Amino acid sequence: MPEPIRTCNIEIRVRYAEVDAMGYLHHARYFVYFEMGRTELLRQNGIRYRDLEAAGVYYVVARIACRFKAPAHYDDVLTLTTSAERITPVRVEHSYHLSRDGRLLAEGESTLVCVGRNGRPIALPEPLYEILTGVGAGPTLE
Amino acid sequence: MPEPIRTCNIEIRVRYAEVDAMGYLHHARYFVYFEMGRTELLRQNGIRYRDLEAAGVYYVVARIACRFKAPAHYDDVLTLTTSAERITPVRVEHSYHLSRDGRLLAEGESTLVCVGRNGRPIALPEPLYEILTGVGAGPTLE
Amino acid sequence: MPEPIRTCNIEIRVRYAEVDAMGYLHHARYFVYFEMGRTELLRQNGIRYRDLEAAGVYYVVARIACRFKAPAHYDDVLTLTTSAERITPVRVEHSYHLSRDGRLLAEGESTLVCVGRNGRPIALPEPLYEILTGVGAGPTLE
Amino acid sequence: MPEPIRTCNIEIRVRYAEVDAMGYLHHARYFVYFEMGRTELLRQNGIRYRDLEAAGVYYVVARIACRFKAPAHYDDVLTLTTSAERITPVRVEHSYHLSRDGRLLAEGESTLVCVGRNGRPIALPEPLYEILTGVGAGPTLE
Repeated sequence: MPEPIRTCNIEIRVRYAEVDAMGYLHHARYFVYFEMGRTELLRQNGIRYRDLEAAGVYYVVARIACRFKAPAHYDDVLTLTTSAERITPVRVEHSYHLSRDGRLLAEGESTLVCVGRNGRPIALPEPLYEILTGVGAGPTLE
Repeated sequence: MPEPIRTCNIEIRVRYAEVDAMGYLHHARYFVYFEMGRTELLRQNGIRYRDLEAAGVYYVVARIACRFKAPAHYDDVLTLTTSAERITPVRVEHSYHLSRDGRLLAEGESTLVCVGRNGRPIALPEPLYEILTGVGAGPTLE
Repeated sequence: MPEPIRTCNIEIRVRYAEVDAMGYLHHARYFVYFEMGRTELLRQNGIRYRDLEAAGVYYVVARIACRFKAPAHYDDVLTLTTSAERITPVRVEHSYHLSRDGRLLAEGESTLVCVGRNGRPIALPEPLYEILTGVGAGPTLE
Repeated sequence: MPEPIRTCNIEIRVRYAEVDAMGYLHHARYFVYFEMGRTELLRQNGIRYRDLEAAGVYYVVARIACRFKAPAHYDDVLTLTTSAERITPVRVEHSYHLSRDGRLLAEGESTLVCVGRNGRPIALPEPLYEILTGVGAGPTLE
């Protein structure tokens, strides 16, 4: 089994519709970027989140936070680094670094919980868990 | 059967997250407002759109347009007038007037098509059609 | 001077454009709601945020977080309680409770910093500080 | 003077936050994509829209419309073709084709008007007009 990829970088250009009256990227949009980072991190591990949902496996956000250090502006090209910090069969914790030309603009972190179609917590299917962690889920789930 | 309600007004206060770097309501948000107007017009006729979707009946937008006359700003209270201009069992045409203190800011129109869960066109269920038009769908559907 | 109002409730109906493919209010939209709560809390103290910006006084978000307990759905009517927990001349901390029919859906908190047109921190003008706290800023600012 | 570029293609991956409860790209987001297309078309002609705004020249949307042929879904990679159909010193008309794997999903068109900081119509500065059209504005403006 290949070693799981725990960190990925993506570039995002700030859209005009995403800035506010100050000309700054609106703070709520950062969380949309973080979601894009999670999608790409999954993809680099060979998993498409759309396929998870089609199979009835959903990740919902249980907690998310961001600290804003400096503003981003329209048309800026930003680099988002998304890292899976801790993975269990039922939840995953990510961290996020958003920067422009090497300058840190914002840092965030989130906890996601795996749920089924009815919204109730489930364990991530074992093959996926193994891909993301490099180890089997073991006999007992957290 | 009560006479269907063909026009309704709602008030919308422009949110900070909806304006752009000019301080103007971003043009794409107008279409979100129009959607709110359609929801309220249905509600005034005793129909909740969420119940339609739960029953497998969806309205999708086939065409939408807007002409912008004057800008709206953050915190403005706007009046949106939504009118059902023409209703058939398979489609509905709406018009929209958005104003502030009696001054017209934008005018729009849309065509919606009724589809099922698989995205294929269906006829609006006859009881709903009767509520919205005040007449039965008749023996042949358009 | 009237006693400042530290908490306010607003009702928000979830828009169709705000839910995701699960039919849940997307987590990034909660922060847009929180911003609406802050605007209304200011308004109840007789201050329009738009007037602050016109006077060159801006609040920027330095940190924001939310814990999500249960999903909100399209067309739900939610109650948002926004409270100013701590106010200094240069920053303000808010807390947020979002509920539906008395059931808590999400809790959040934020720290905002007061900046000028150039984005550099400034102290909230003293008359505003007095309105929001009921006391003068005193001889030394934090 | 180089020949102006009248058409450009960009690729856009649909974000999770952009789809609705049907799993379809929400119709209001198409207009955000169109705006991205206009920004890139300007960039290919050597003009950054952010520099225009910094110089006090703004394009505002006077009219926009879209016909929706087939839905786009989360994670789809779409191709947007943006074309400048007609340019005068005070307005520009664009057309848009959005497709996936060669299949047309939506077609749109818009009219933008050039305004100054006060929101009143102005003529596009002549050097920019020449870049975009390949010809001088001539002695009389429309």
